[in-house]
Amino acid sequence: MTEKEINAIVNAVANEISFNSNITLECANKLIDAVKQKAGEMGLAVVVAVSNAAGNPVAVQCMDGAYIASYDIAFNKAYTVVSLKMSTKELSKLSTPGDSLYGIQFTNNGRLVIFGGGVPLYDKFGKIVGGLGVSGGSEEQDTALADFGGQYYKERLQ
Amino acid sequence: MTEKEINAIVNAVANEISFNSNITLECANKLIDAVKQKAGEMGLAVVVAVSNAAGNPVAVQCMDGAYIASYDIAFNKAYTVVSLKMSTKELSKLSTPGDSLYGIQFTNNGRLVIFGGGVPLYDKFGKIVGGLGVSGGSEEQDTALADFGGQYYKERLQ
Amino acid sequence: MTEKEINAIVNAVANEISFNSNITLECANKLIDAVKQKAGEMGLAVVVAVSNAAGNPVAVQCMDGAYIASYDIAFNKAYTVVSLKMSTKELSKLSTPGDSLYGIQFTNNGRLVIFGGGVPLYDKFGKIVGGLGVSGGSEEQDTALADFGGQYYKERLQ
Amino acid sequence: MTEKEINAIVNAVANEISFNSNITLECANKLIDAVKQKAGEMGLAVVVAVSNAAGNPVAVQCMDGAYIASYDIAFNKAYTVVSLKMSTKELSKLSTPGDSLYGIQFTNNGRLVIFGGGVPLYDKFGKIVGGLGVSGGSEEQDTALADFGGQYYKERLQ
Repeated sequence: MTEKEINAIVNAVANEISFNSNITLECANKLIDAVKQKAGEMGLAVVVAVSNAAGNPVAVQCMDGAYIASYDIAFNKAYTVVSLKMSTKELSKLSTPGDSLYGIQFTNNGRLVIFGGGVPLYDKFGKIVGGLGVSGGSEEQDTALADFGGQYYKERLQ
Repeated sequence: MTEKEINAIVNAVANEISFNSNITLECANKLIDAVKQKAGEMGLAVVVAVSNAAGNPVAVQCMDGAYIASYDIAFNKAYTVVSLKMSTKELSKLSTPGDSLYGIQFTNNGRLVIFGGGVPLYDKFGKIVGGLGVSGGSEEQDTALADFGGQYYKERLQ
Repeated sequence: MTEKEINAIVNAVANEISFNSNITLECANKLIDAVKQKAGEMGLAVVVAVSNAAGNPVAVQCMDGAYIASYDIAFNKAYTVVSLKMSTKELSKLSTPGDSLYGIQFTNNGRLVIFGGGVPLYDKFGKIVGGLGVSGGSEEQDTALADFGGQYYKERLQ
Repeated sequence: MTEKEINAIVNAVANEISFNSNITLECANKLIDAVKQKAGEMGLAVVVAVSNAAGNPVAVQCMDGAYIASYDIAFNKAYTVVSLKMSTKELSKLSTPGDSLYGIQFTNNGRLVIFGGGVPLYDKFGKIVGGLGVSGGSEEQDTALADFGGQYYKERLQ
């Protein structure tokens, strides 16, 4: 194998890993666009937030007329799913009074959201590359939109 | 003038005012795109944030590789310019030790930014409709990008 | 008894008391190492935190791959057990809705954790010298690791 | 080239990148040990904190007798250097009254430290893999210890 071949492989792998290891802004915006369109079809005005694999924000967009409070909620959902590696819907089950993680909503300076509307985003190897948070509808609607976004990411953007 | 005619006028005026009174997400994204492109030409990776006339966020986008700290800074610049109705560059002059507004950086829970990179956005009647915050370069570069964005808004999006 | 003899006794007592009254960094690190090894055997990546008798932190270590959210949780568990002189498991029973301490999770700026994974550390006279907080597994796993750590401290480090 | 050869290369590159892209706990602890020893030689009791490339904490250790306040300071220095990609000493020059970034200390919820004692840690390609924060001595001493740590990381741990 020549040095040139080795370099080509190294670069290919590096690009692959870099592509997969963290969501890009371009990719985040495409995902947000898809969720906004779906929300519009449902007659909703929502805030959509995307965080990277470290829980830091990549992009947040607020549809016209969305609740003011939804900014913090969507933003924090995108953080929650990355920092705990589960959807906020799953976390909601673990954090009800009497359940094992009841009280987790108070431990992280109010950054952990314990109701539906946030999902982790995975690369094709199953590694978390970011998080999606949606807020603005009912919990069922936010959950549906987040699930739609997670599926859209998997099928179109992964 | 018939009631129908009156209603038509009222609606037309209301639409006009409503259109101008607050920046839309679509408009904010166009503005952010223009600033991102300019930043790219300058070799910078910045965070660009837009707030509405109430100081609430409309959209925030973080270019790949931007400083982690720039999210809060850009976000808060967009808030500062609306909440004080001046650019952060102007505020920087007023808030140095010994000057009239020295101390204002302590009064609002850390939400007021006192260095360049934020400008208010005006409608064609001179009313503030939103704010633009940019962070990621030097203060000069952020200020230049914010000024560019303010001008772009005036010429293309107002 | 000569003055020299008296001084020797005073110093010995002082050292003894000082040794017991607060956990040292060396001791905290030994305890954290033991908990990390146990967590590794259980296939977990956890954050382990140790606070001193005043509730202030001594050391925190995050195993590679641990939840991002676990830092705050482990840190706050180590604070909770010292500041309330009970394990977070005991506190979880007292703080569920309808129980005597329900609401305590809201009183201390989010620093009190009300689910398992934190235990006080005692000297040989039964006095609290510090706290151990573990986060990263299920509540049962965190509780088991904290109990293991408490026992390890008693047997090897006290 | 056989599939086995390709896989071997891919894994080698992936390990290399993974090793470089983020500091491990083992590496952070070695670095902290070196800084603690140096601080001891200088007669100081300091807090030493290490963050990863995303600004999230990896490990914090408080030498016996260190200032209580030093925990937050060291922790935030380790965050600052990663989130702004410069040492806190460099930032101190930019953030004095009258200078371009004066006021940055107020913009990020008190997480940006503007005096010496924090340095970014680089991999052999010059990419930031983490941050080191030291607090407990004078600013000169903290700066010297952070510089020592940065150099130690480069020579022994990179």
